[in-house]
Amino acid sequence: MNKFILAAIALAVSCGAAFAETPLPKAIKAGKERTKVRREVHLPKIDGKELLKCDFHIHSVFSDGIVWPSLRVDEAWEEGLDVIALTEHLEGQPARTGMEKGDHNRSYKLARNNAAAKNILLVPGAEITRSMPPGHLNALFITDANALVVPDPMEAIGNAKKQGAFIEWNHPGWGVDTIMWHPMHEEIYRRGWMDGIEVFNEFEWYPVALNWANDKKLTLIANTDVHDVTERLYDFERNPHRPMTLVLAEERTLDGVKKAMFDRQTIMWFFDTMIGSRELLGKFFNGAVKVEASHHNDGQRDYRTIVNSSDMPFTLTAAKSVAGYPETINLPAMSSIIVTVPAKGGKVKYNVDNMIVTPSERLSVELF
Amino acid sequence: MNKFILAAIALAVSCGAAFAETPLPKAIKAGKERTKVRREVHLPKIDGKELLKCDFHIHSVFSDGIVWPSLRVDEAWEEGLDVIALTEHLEGQPARTGMEKGDHNRSYKLARNNAAAKNILLVPGAEITRSMPPGHLNALFITDANALVVPDPMEAIGNAKKQGAFIEWNHPGWGVDTIMWHPMHEEIYRRGWMDGIEVFNEFEWYPVALNWANDKKLTLIANTDVHDVTERLYDFERNPHRPMTLVLAEERTLDGVKKAMFDRQTIMWFFDTMIGSRELLGKFFNGAVKVEASHHNDGQRDYRTIVNSSDMPFTLTAAKSVAGYPETINLPAMSSIIVTVPAKGGKVKYNVDNMIVTPSERLSVELF
Amino acid sequence: MNKFILAAIALAVSCGAAFAETPLPKAIKAGKERTKVRREVHLPKIDGKELLKCDFHIHSVFSDGIVWPSLRVDEAWEEGLDVIALTEHLEGQPARTGMEKGDHNRSYKLARNNAAAKNILLVPGAEITRSMPPGHLNALFITDANALVVPDPMEAIGNAKKQGAFIEWNHPGWGVDTIMWHPMHEEIYRRGWMDGIEVFNEFEWYPVALNWANDKKLTLIANTDVHDVTERLYDFERNPHRPMTLVLAEERTLDGVKKAMFDRQTIMWFFDTMIGSRELLGKFFNGAVKVEASHHNDGQRDYRTIVNSSDMPFTLTAAKSVAGYPETINLPAMSSIIVTVPAKGGKVKYNVDNMIVTPSERLSVELF
Amino acid sequence: MNKFILAAIALAVSCGAAFAETPLPKAIKAGKERTKVRREVHLPKIDGKELLKCDFHIHSVFSDGIVWPSLRVDEAWEEGLDVIALTEHLEGQPARTGMEKGDHNRSYKLARNNAAAKNILLVPGAEITRSMPPGHLNALFITDANALVVPDPMEAIGNAKKQGAFIEWNHPGWGVDTIMWHPMHEEIYRRGWMDGIEVFNEFEWYPVALNWANDKKLTLIANTDVHDVTERLYDFERNPHRPMTLVLAEERTLDGVKKAMFDRQTIMWFFDTMIGSRELLGKFFNGAVKVEASHHNDGQRDYRTIVNSSDMPFTLTAAKSVAGYPETINLPAMSSIIVTVPAKGGKVKYNVDNMIVTPSERLSVELF
Repeated sequence: MNKFILAAIALAVSCGAAFAETPLPKAIKAGKERTKVRREVHLPKIDGKELLKCDFHIHSVFSDGIVWPSLRVDEAWEEGLDVIALTEHLEGQPARTGMEKGDHNRSYKLARNNAAAKNILLVPGAEITRSMPPGHLNALFITDANALVVPDPMEAIGNAKKQGAFIEWNHPGWGVDTIMWHPMHEEIYRRGWMDGIEVFNEFEWYPVALNWANDKKLTLIANTDVHDVTERLYDFERNPHRPMTLVLAEERTLDGVKKAMFDRQTIMWFFDTMIGSRELLGKFFNGAVKVEASHHNDGQRDYRTIVNSSDMPFTLTAAKSVAGYPETINLPAMSSIIVTVPAKGGKVKYNVDNMIVTPSERLSVELF
Repeated sequence: MNKFILAAIALAVSCGAAFAETPLPKAIKAGKERTKVRREVHLPKIDGKELLKCDFHIHSVFSDGIVWPSLRVDEAWEEGLDVIALTEHLEGQPARTGMEKGDHNRSYKLARNNAAAKNILLVPGAEITRSMPPGHLNALFITDANALVVPDPMEAIGNAKKQGAFIEWNHPGWGVDTIMWHPMHEEIYRRGWMDGIEVFNEFEWYPVALNWANDKKLTLIANTDVHDVTERLYDFERNPHRPMTLVLAEERTLDGVKKAMFDRQTIMWFFDTMIGSRELLGKFFNGAVKVEASHHNDGQRDYRTIVNSSDMPFTLTAAKSVAGYPETINLPAMSSIIVTVPAKGGKVKYNVDNMIVTPSERLSVELF
Repeated sequence: MNKFILAAIALAVSCGAAFAETPLPKAIKAGKERTKVRREVHLPKIDGKELLKCDFHIHSVFSDGIVWPSLRVDEAWEEGLDVIALTEHLEGQPARTGMEKGDHNRSYKLARNNAAAKNILLVPGAEITRSMPPGHLNALFITDANALVVPDPMEAIGNAKKQGAFIEWNHPGWGVDTIMWHPMHEEIYRRGWMDGIEVFNEFEWYPVALNWANDKKLTLIANTDVHDVTERLYDFERNPHRPMTLVLAEERTLDGVKKAMFDRQTIMWFFDTMIGSRELLGKFFNGAVKVEASHHNDGQRDYRTIVNSSDMPFTLTAAKSVAGYPETINLPAMSSIIVTVPAKGGKVKYNVDNMIVTPSERLSVELF
Repeated sequence: MNKFILAAIALAVSCGAAFAETPLPKAIKAGKERTKVRREVHLPKIDGKELLKCDFHIHSVFSDGIVWPSLRVDEAWEEGLDVIALTEHLEGQPARTGMEKGDHNRSYKLARNNAAAKNILLVPGAEITRSMPPGHLNALFITDANALVVPDPMEAIGNAKKQGAFIEWNHPGWGVDTIMWHPMHEEIYRRGWMDGIEVFNEFEWYPVALNWANDKKLTLIANTDVHDVTERLYDFERNPHRPMTLVLAEERTLDGVKKAMFDRQTIMWFFDTMIGSRELLGKFFNGAVKVEASHHNDGQRDYRTIVNSSDMPFTLTAAKSVAGYPETINLPAMSSIIVTVPAKGGKVKYNVDNMIVTPSERLSVELF
């Protein structure tokens, strides 16, 4: 309470004010609402373009998720995402007591207004859900989910493709004894219907699927497949971002995202790991990490600052040990470190341990 | 990687193992699921009995909440609660696209199994929802919510009472210009139907309603009225517990809770504030706070440890200034502090600033 | 443990390896060291120049602080600062048992190497410590602290000025009954020796001193005066940055900082508040906050994103209420929010409540 | 600002008060000091006695630490410890510029008053610092550190023993190529001077030393050997407690601690791991973990709550797989979980993976 107020009260008292009759306030605020804001994800631009942060596999109460569709938009907005798809299971829809049967586009329709308000691109989608083969597949960028509800899975996929859909094979290694490229997958692929593959889903990634994606030119995708509230599923104190697919689109529109997906312009990001092509990962690394010029020389060694201006942490190991250079370099997200190197040293090769190109190859970079 | 493994690998290599042919794993785990555990709330026993932690006003997708009913049980279990009521609005039920109309007990039925599994007492309830007067009222401990769906609010309350319900007037100061005890409330009260009143709801409390409760012997209740996910609504980093009603029941059963509610054996707890009777607050304070004997004397002053073994923080102010004693004492939750007092001092009176008995009276305690 | 290793172990076993004889490891690492990295403070550039983050008032064990001088450099580096001064009390130096008497430059000398290694600009300084008047004054950018140890405070200041010092009056409102500009301060000022004033120190600011600074053209300074470990003094969970002076220098050198200090190119920043000139605060606000073009129109209202790309939170209040525009705007640090405004609206005036120009004037800005 | 104040101001204005002349406040408080409180460590009593939380290896500026001795007491008090020893290196004392040479008891003397005020038991100690053998040894419970400053390490130890010291061999695996029990250690042991051994130091533990301790009946000790500020060294967000030795003493006095140390009544605790005797670990586990009676039976399975009321997390693995029982059980600190077991099941054996008895043996317990 400041002096002004105290003076006013003193004066009021001296004027003979009768405080006792002052009415009680109607309500007194207590506590603090949790602030709802958008926290941007800090990523470098690549070729002058923003990387769009996308999650193409999400459920709501309209299949087996536990939240209302519009909350998925709020979560995405708050977590700094640009694009999401609500992909309710088409099969077994009426399983839930209390939910109306019928329109499979309902989830999309109920989230659409909030997506527009929050500037989130909402991809119309659905999950074709069968036992293996073919397992589960997402149809993205569709126009009517109801057309996909047919007995034959090949016909369902075909109907989605007629709508211009992007087809993604979900979690190919989940719920199976062995991860396998079945004849039905070969047939989908042969018809040009296998566009992308979830090499990462929720908490696990599939090395064999990464090889398939690299060999067969499938788009690399990382999704959450979230059914619970995102922050209840993931431990954001440990890893502050949900797993996502980074899409390098020409423009921030649904068409832009769709085109980039077909063009395989994606990086998978989950926790402290990225998977992608040598080219895209290399551009990401170079955009995120700067080795500054020496700021000090103690007679023998240069002191160099390495700045990581991204939310991706990097851990590097020297490709081969070079005297006087650090063997390993840990660069936490959004941080700088200082390393010392020989005063007149040259370039040294490092492997970025957490940027995966193939199951056995890591991104190779040159520093200093 | 430990020595055993390195030795094994060395040996394997020397045996001529061909690593290249080893198959890739089906899946590699990454990241960490957020651990779901119950965190007990630390409160003193009173008269040898546990204080039950209760929230009697909660919504799900079956009215205007945004989560599935069973999640409310998970939240309650994780946050250390003992008792919750799902209190869906009875009026305007079919407002939501996609939800089936009909049975008003659905929310309760869908959460019941999870409540049994998690050892949460689930109170059958519903919210009678009218404009003021009478505003909103919760009917708790009912047997069939459908019987309450009648045009006349008095009849709705009467039908609930026929089921043995406890009736609580919700947020009496919300959505109104002036907080008022209308003739209809007087009539409800006169018939013996006004059992309790929400003096706290979500983020605000109503001093006038506290006076009503004290004057008319209504049970003091604090509820969240949560529609969102609890941890999205409340900032648990700032205040780690949701607002709640502490109920001093003879036994941890629905009957025990109901009896204690009718007997007005409650303390309201929201953020760092409690509201209750002089007697219950006094027992709470004395159970939570211990002033230890002097552990050191520097010739003039005693060094005394004050231990707060509860999750409730306390802030105290001397009733009148006494030389050598602290003017104010801050006792954060689950912490100890050390104060110095005169070596041969006596008892000193303090007001507990955050334990409210009436709008103008705080709990008075004696220390040292 | 991956499949490769398991295969190796299996092979080793089949080769008849005797694990029992494998020696125990010498040591097993447990737990994790706290990572020491630099976290950059996110501030906009002003006129193309970085704002340097400075703390000109710090103590170590060489006066009445409790840490070794070099730790002050580590703290500064980790917290994203650019410039610090160790300002040990010149008077009463040998008060501490166990510390050698003599050289008053020792603290500076012991921190110098670490400052060079960490790229922190270390300002040579000292604190002339007398009772009021003149109270405490920091002499910054000196060449020899020992020359300042003389009985007459005016002579001490004069000796510092002979070394080219910048003189700052510390915490003018601390430890006094009334904050006063004494004749001795007038004399210091008249001689051109009063260069700046600590309008903020540790946890408090002095409105009267702000008026003096504005009237007499003194440089505005905010310092910690830290004696404890910085993160033990400040609650970085609540406010993640220590109080500091932002200096707009032509170059990141001691000379650059010194010149900018004499030119009054500073902004004081403490917790969620800034104090500075209308011009500098205005440039800061405009550099930090961007109102994006409408991303959605629902027929009546535009949806606009406001991005705060700085670590400074902003709270704004409409200068006068304008229909359809938000009355208050809260912009947490490093966050975006969305507001709705009339579809064809114009500019609206807001006061930035936490950017202080004078005790009664806040920064005025136009939005939308 | 409440209604009373507003009423007062309104009245003041109507009385014609001239606010402009009201003086500015001398100072305005901003931000919040970090609260300094003691947080108790939650551990079960054993045989009705408190486990005392002890750290017997700590440095200050009086050897090669970077903080003033009294801060070590504050850290210990805040972190819930009961006992610390300041163990400055006796050798090379005057290495630090600015520190007075001479009395080796200075560190102890400077921390003593604060220890009394904070109710921390301060053990007089020193570190005898030689290259290996014998390496570093702490002499604890001594009466004069100066008497230990002699050229011959055996004589130094002997002089400490004459003072009744407890001798502990520090970090036997640190700074050496191979961990070895040298002839000099055998000689110390033979003379009855080797009382305890630091099987854990700072971040690593020594399996070979654990075997020595078990074979030769040496007291098991875990210390921090902290030189930096404790919360700067350890990541308390990940593991909220510093490594420590738990001592089961008859009384909370220096004599009580000393006796218990000689009697080997200790448990080592570091991060999520404990090392100790089968007996003490077993009592600890049984005091901390309770399996409650079934609270629900779904026809086939019982639902059982397991409560961990300690700050030690437990991870258990079934000794051998038993149908219907959990294979692994994770019990985070201060949490409850629910498991399901067969309705009429019996006891099942588990190994507590993080309670170490010998390098190859874990504590075995029976549950359900």
